[in-house]
Amino acid sequence: MIFEKIKSEVVSHLSYFIGSGNEAFVVDPRRDCQIYVDIAKREGMNIRHIFETHRNEDYVIGSLELASLTGAEIYHGPWPEFKYGEVVPDGQEFRVGKLKVTAIRTPGHTPGDISIAVADTATGGETVIVCTGDTLFVNDTGRTDFGGPEARREWSENLYDSIFNKLFPLGDHVVLCPAHGSGSVCGGKIADREMSTLGLERLMNPVLQLGREEFVRYKAEERHEYAPYFGRMEVLNVEGAPNFGVGPNPPALTAEEFKEKWEGGAIVLDTRPPPSFGAGHIKGSYSLALKRLGLVGWVLPHDRPVLLLMTSQSHFDYLTRNLSRIGYDNVAGYMAGSIVDWYKKGLPVERLDMMTVPELKKALDSGEDWLVLDVRSHDEWEEGHIEGATNIYVGLMEKRLDEVPQDRRVAVICKSGTRSGFASSIMLREGRENIHNVLGGMEAWKALGYPTVQ
Amino acid sequence: MIFEKIKSEVVSHLSYFIGSGNEAFVVDPRRDCQIYVDIAKREGMNIRHIFETHRNEDYVIGSLELASLTGAEIYHGPWPEFKYGEVVPDGQEFRVGKLKVTAIRTPGHTPGDISIAVADTATGGETVIVCTGDTLFVNDTGRTDFGGPEARREWSENLYDSIFNKLFPLGDHVVLCPAHGSGSVCGGKIADREMSTLGLERLMNPVLQLGREEFVRYKAEERHEYAPYFGRMEVLNVEGAPNFGVGPNPPALTAEEFKEKWEGGAIVLDTRPPPSFGAGHIKGSYSLALKRLGLVGWVLPHDRPVLLLMTSQSHFDYLTRNLSRIGYDNVAGYMAGSIVDWYKKGLPVERLDMMTVPELKKALDSGEDWLVLDVRSHDEWEEGHIEGATNIYVGLMEKRLDEVPQDRRVAVICKSGTRSGFASSIMLREGRENIHNVLGGMEAWKALGYPTVQ
Amino acid sequence: MIFEKIKSEVVSHLSYFIGSGNEAFVVDPRRDCQIYVDIAKREGMNIRHIFETHRNEDYVIGSLELASLTGAEIYHGPWPEFKYGEVVPDGQEFRVGKLKVTAIRTPGHTPGDISIAVADTATGGETVIVCTGDTLFVNDTGRTDFGGPEARREWSENLYDSIFNKLFPLGDHVVLCPAHGSGSVCGGKIADREMSTLGLERLMNPVLQLGREEFVRYKAEERHEYAPYFGRMEVLNVEGAPNFGVGPNPPALTAEEFKEKWEGGAIVLDTRPPPSFGAGHIKGSYSLALKRLGLVGWVLPHDRPVLLLMTSQSHFDYLTRNLSRIGYDNVAGYMAGSIVDWYKKGLPVERLDMMTVPELKKALDSGEDWLVLDVRSHDEWEEGHIEGATNIYVGLMEKRLDEVPQDRRVAVICKSGTRSGFASSIMLREGRENIHNVLGGMEAWKALGYPTVQ
Amino acid sequence: MIFEKIKSEVVSHLSYFIGSGNEAFVVDPRRDCQIYVDIAKREGMNIRHIFETHRNEDYVIGSLELASLTGAEIYHGPWPEFKYGEVVPDGQEFRVGKLKVTAIRTPGHTPGDISIAVADTATGGETVIVCTGDTLFVNDTGRTDFGGPEARREWSENLYDSIFNKLFPLGDHVVLCPAHGSGSVCGGKIADREMSTLGLERLMNPVLQLGREEFVRYKAEERHEYAPYFGRMEVLNVEGAPNFGVGPNPPALTAEEFKEKWEGGAIVLDTRPPPSFGAGHIKGSYSLALKRLGLVGWVLPHDRPVLLLMTSQSHFDYLTRNLSRIGYDNVAGYMAGSIVDWYKKGLPVERLDMMTVPELKKALDSGEDWLVLDVRSHDEWEEGHIEGATNIYVGLMEKRLDEVPQDRRVAVICKSGTRSGFASSIMLREGRENIHNVLGGMEAWKALGYPTVQ
Repeated sequence: MIFEKIKSEVVSHLSYFIGSGNEAFVVDPRRDCQIYVDIAKREGMNIRHIFETHRNEDYVIGSLELASLTGAEIYHGPWPEFKYGEVVPDGQEFRVGKLKVTAIRTPGHTPGDISIAVADTATGGETVIVCTGDTLFVNDTGRTDFGGPEARREWSENLYDSIFNKLFPLGDHVVLCPAHGSGSVCGGKIADREMSTLGLERLMNPVLQLGREEFVRYKAEERHEYAPYFGRMEVLNVEGAPNFGVGPNPPALTAEEFKEKWEGGAIVLDTRPPPSFGAGHIKGSYSLALKRLGLVGWVLPHDRPVLLLMTSQSHFDYLTRNLSRIGYDNVAGYMAGSIVDWYKKGLPVERLDMMTVPELKKALDSGEDWLVLDVRSHDEWEEGHIEGATNIYVGLMEKRLDEVPQDRRVAVICKSGTRSGFASSIMLREGRENIHNVLGGMEAWKALGYPTVQ
Repeated sequence: MIFEKIKSEVVSHLSYFIGSGNEAFVVDPRRDCQIYVDIAKREGMNIRHIFETHRNEDYVIGSLELASLTGAEIYHGPWPEFKYGEVVPDGQEFRVGKLKVTAIRTPGHTPGDISIAVADTATGGETVIVCTGDTLFVNDTGRTDFGGPEARREWSENLYDSIFNKLFPLGDHVVLCPAHGSGSVCGGKIADREMSTLGLERLMNPVLQLGREEFVRYKAEERHEYAPYFGRMEVLNVEGAPNFGVGPNPPALTAEEFKEKWEGGAIVLDTRPPPSFGAGHIKGSYSLALKRLGLVGWVLPHDRPVLLLMTSQSHFDYLTRNLSRIGYDNVAGYMAGSIVDWYKKGLPVERLDMMTVPELKKALDSGEDWLVLDVRSHDEWEEGHIEGATNIYVGLMEKRLDEVPQDRRVAVICKSGTRSGFASSIMLREGRENIHNVLGGMEAWKALGYPTVQ
Repeated sequence: MIFEKIKSEVVSHLSYFIGSGNEAFVVDPRRDCQIYVDIAKREGMNIRHIFETHRNEDYVIGSLELASLTGAEIYHGPWPEFKYGEVVPDGQEFRVGKLKVTAIRTPGHTPGDISIAVADTATGGETVIVCTGDTLFVNDTGRTDFGGPEARREWSENLYDSIFNKLFPLGDHVVLCPAHGSGSVCGGKIADREMSTLGLERLMNPVLQLGREEFVRYKAEERHEYAPYFGRMEVLNVEGAPNFGVGPNPPALTAEEFKEKWEGGAIVLDTRPPPSFGAGHIKGSYSLALKRLGLVGWVLPHDRPVLLLMTSQSHFDYLTRNLSRIGYDNVAGYMAGSIVDWYKKGLPVERLDMMTVPELKKALDSGEDWLVLDVRSHDEWEEGHIEGATNIYVGLMEKRLDEVPQDRRVAVICKSGTRSGFASSIMLREGRENIHNVLGGMEAWKALGYPTVQ
Repeated sequence: MIFEKIKSEVVSHLSYFIGSGNEAFVVDPRRDCQIYVDIAKREGMNIRHIFETHRNEDYVIGSLELASLTGAEIYHGPWPEFKYGEVVPDGQEFRVGKLKVTAIRTPGHTPGDISIAVADTATGGETVIVCTGDTLFVNDTGRTDFGGPEARREWSENLYDSIFNKLFPLGDHVVLCPAHGSGSVCGGKIADREMSTLGLERLMNPVLQLGREEFVRYKAEERHEYAPYFGRMEVLNVEGAPNFGVGPNPPALTAEEFKEKWEGGAIVLDTRPPPSFGAGHIKGSYSLALKRLGLVGWVLPHDRPVLLLMTSQSHFDYLTRNLSRIGYDNVAGYMAGSIVDWYKKGLPVERLDMMTVPELKKALDSGEDWLVLDVRSHDEWEEGHIEGATNIYVGLMEKRLDEVPQDRRVAVICKSGTRSGFASSIMLREGRENIHNVLGGMEAWKALGYPTVQ
């Protein structure tokens, strides 16, 4: 038995290559799917089946392309109506070498979710692992809000029943293989520990300690954001996305060529660390450091040219690959030699003021007029924030900009300084002034023992 | 939480790098231990602790060298008296970032075995994984014969109690991390599935389905072989092995230089596939293909020069690294350009006849006088062999050669043809003639539907 | 200035990525052209131009696919009429960053050959390197026989004039960058030293030490073989080959699946070393070890399914990639687990006898009736062979099989044993018997001091 | 013939692995010398000889360690008195496979310089390549100032004679293999083109276009800086450096641990880009971006603990390896998680103001009192600088700080902004205020058409 977990950064997506003998299957392949083909070649295996645990909203699934490369059959659940693949009946079994693979309907996150249980008949009939998609995560469960408010209660009930009546009966001993790890937009409380079992979740997953009614109420009221790019993902994942093939190949641009495209309306995505952005950036850029790249889905259009600014050429593959994974095929170029080429040409540069936490504290204490703009999620905000601050989630910054007064100095804060940098760049794009990004964020605020309110 | 399993081929050894925050520990490091340092550097972590689950017999442990590279402390159980490190009390806890790591005494395989239980306090107090060393494997348990016949029953009782009273109470949900995978000499029935939990073993591990007394009897009578190199491992693993450093660097030899060393008494280890060996080899070579390399421990001395013959130069690292892992620091060179250089110089070449299974069947049916020499393990032999065959385990071939008559044609057979090639080469070394290696082995015999007896 | 030489094994093809600033060009890209795109991405460069030094016969050129990936323009000489790209005028200059790149017409190998001279204007106007395609190699010059016998003299004259009047005037100091290295079918005497300059060739290249008339006569009479696959290369390289994309992905087959396709008429290509083939192979296989893979072009059809047998799964990429480079897109699968799976199923196995050189000598001396069949090239044969031997070049073995008597024992010999293994397998395919492959070949014969005649 | 050029960043050092058959030699091995052993293992070769072209001042040579790993003999010239290896007579020849290797005395850069000429006897007697150490570079020649002012003229004469009477007679066709590429402190005008021949240098190298007397005068007056770390290199390279082994392994530190060591007197080396340093750094840090790392040799002691700050953990190997190459074995740790961990703890942060070139121009034009401090080399300064500016070479900043008035605003400028960042950080360390680093530097100044004087 070959088992390989493939982690995709940014969207914190987990997919699985599982095989036995010379046969294998893949669960939830990512868009740049050559990696599964390469494993198959390394192991001398053929990918026979592709399982989609559900219609994904947060990344582009690569099933169609992988099927075209391998001849594998695609299976998914009964909702929505996919334009490709087959709907798998509840309980259908597949033989893959010595493995018995069973598709189990586990609705809740959507009405069409399935889980994939795997037994190794070489050693017995017990389920060894179960791929749970977005039904059950390590320390969290799938969101139930994609059907809209009216469906939410029912979906939450289904989720409870799927977990307690379909998954847990497989046994405490079953290894858990979810579709997302920590950092995913699909579950804000997913633990950064990657390893779990059904038993560990039964015993420790906080929301699964609730009774059914409590659970349903909790899930029905849980707060989630819906990033605009989700809409595009939903379409691509029902109809099938364009092939990734050998991957994107946008041109290297000199500072002058970059400037020309920028003046022609291309959008600049500056992926350097926030302090570098602060010290000198191109007017109108979005500032978003690598590890939070997924947030671009809140603001970046899919149909206008995008230009990349990188700290180092070595980030090229990471950036273009991860943008493709969330459907951005519209990268029109990148600045060769990073922004240094721009500096060396003497081209115009803007600044964003950086502020330390002690400076912010001193300013507030001195009675200066500051708006503290906290751009963390609602959940983080509720756990403790600076008195008098305003909360607008970073993803909604562009839409809710009107709520930020124009005549006050603004100190933008998040957990550590990355999301606040992004939010600051959104405000600068809209012509706002007197914006300051707080280095170290609420972590520093708390580390220094400054007071918070809830 | 960072979790990385490091597999070492040949001895099928599994070791673990587990970390949290900027701290980490390693369980049962292998001799070429730079790999753990590299993971630590990649993750920005410091290795604080090294746990040895037991005194190993089948490979050289790298604790001392890893400790000297990192400043980590070494811990092991109370038996035997190690000349380095500390004895850890039963139940002692360590904090590693957010992890709670507990050493649990689990005697049985030896009186000094410990297991390492890991809880992730970020999500609760339950044990997430347990490193069980040679106490519990996937589908098998540790051997209990290293204390000699008189201690065997007691050690087997201890093993049962350790598994049922110390490990299983941690819960079905605990992920199992043993020290060996399939192919190890430490457990002949270890499954090739790498993933398991305590619950899966409780439910499916065959020997754990027995009652205590039945279990003890089974383990006390289980048949194991004791390879001569074990003795050296025991010494090195109590006293500490010489440093591996940047690894071995034996010289590339021309055919003439190779010949000179060979004539001077160096031993040739021919690692090409058995058919290549059959078609033309150097007199006196041991034939042992890469995947069964560990068997050299039965015959290869640690104090005489060894010469390597490889299919391809690309095998150099694999070969020298794996020989070092079992304590062979005496490689005196390898033939550059593989054996082709020897052929091209017209140097003397010997052959070993290859026989197909239908040819063997026909020969036996025709009444010709053949000795079928089955060199598989006792367990494999008992599951079915050719009527009239003789069983001598390949590892004992050199010692028990007298039992093979000199005047009969010999067809050497194993499962598929690799171990029989090794056994054949041992006989050729001793001047035996009329030796034939059976291609495809008992697998082919059974595939063709020929009869076996038990 | 970035300069990178890309070597492609098997056809010993050399291509070049050369760049300056953020611009680059490629000379003679291979079919699997992603490697150039990857260099460009790593360096932050754009490939602007692709130069084809000539219409290639021995491998598939990747210009069209590389152009589609990068937007580069393709340039070649005036012969033949390409269905893509542009014809470049003699002396045309291109600016690539700070480089001045000049296309120079150097007919001779074909009427359309061009060379690419590169000066680095940052340090002066002298030519630094020249890419000479098949016009001038290290220690050899391009063949002049592709125009047929009637054109051969004229093409040879052109070659002389191109080298002496177009290339050498660039200066002794110019670094030579040819399209092939040692082992290519495009020049039998190419040195295995990869580094040269125009001056070194002027002073040491044997054929350039001749006077013009002598040179022309030599080249016009030089003996070359024309492999059947050349015809296909010529078509693909004029019309443009199908895209390579992410590369071939033939299925892994069990022994039974393999057998089924084999029985259905698929051709088996056995790439294990000759001794392994000798000890047990599948009836009808071609035997051709990796390093001589290019010879398959003599016999392997492009339109029938081909099955691969490999020593190790790790050879998969090498094999399928190199077959694609010479136009074989018809690989229908490979045996997973190498031939061991076949052996283990007890499926039928054939043998080819291996013979050592002393055995051959003894047999010949004893007056036994043996045909020594020497399958080396005409040039190698002329330098010395065994008295009484017959010479049929390995590539022509299939066509000239009638010249080999059916009633004699045949000892097949080449330089070391690989080509003789291939020739032997061709004879076995045709039902011949009593074939023996001589291990070590003429090298061993000479090393042992046995006599040869010229 | 195997030829491999090994480039080492930072010191722009080039070393060479050259082999034939199963023998090889290395010219000027770097300190982390495992790379040569790995090439030898890959190729099936033995390193027999190590040549040191001269006593190096700018990096630690790895000859002794490489010799201990391989048994190779070390050879160098007659000056200074090395404590290891042998002095090679002028003209001594070595056979390495089919190569003829000749040591040629080429004094000038030092009295003990040798060059290594390589002929490939397989194709003739002409020299193919020559390794020239610091005697002759692409577009430049070695400095002649290490003997002090009184010896300088004589050394310059020797250099001329070595080049014109010892090297050039080998022929225009000889490939040039110098010990340094562009960016080295050993030659400020070395071209970034890596490929050259003796003929190209004879024709285009600017200083070689001069007559002998002109050349000698030029070289005797050429301006060079002598970095303090050179002294340590000289000692290590005469006596032999401590082994590199498996390389440095400094600990990962939390922000608190880092702070503690910093407060205890450890020196912080901040390797992030200058804008990041500007936006927030730790008081007293040196700011030096990766590509200019070699400049640390001007200020960093070898005997006090050094702490590293990196943009990304992926820079760890690059940084520690390159520091080791110039003798820094005193790295005491690095901040895990980059400076973000420091920010998140709210620890104290300093800023350095960044200034754009238009801002500087405007300030100067408006009559504000600014000192423009140009920290480029003397040669760069002479080619054009801002009127009224002061030139102090960055390497001398610490020593000549008194020349900078304390009461003026200072705009620090270099070519693009990296060296000025380093110089700025040196001034901040000494308590200076009102320091501004000019982004884009003189390149931007010139790109914008602002006036310069010479």
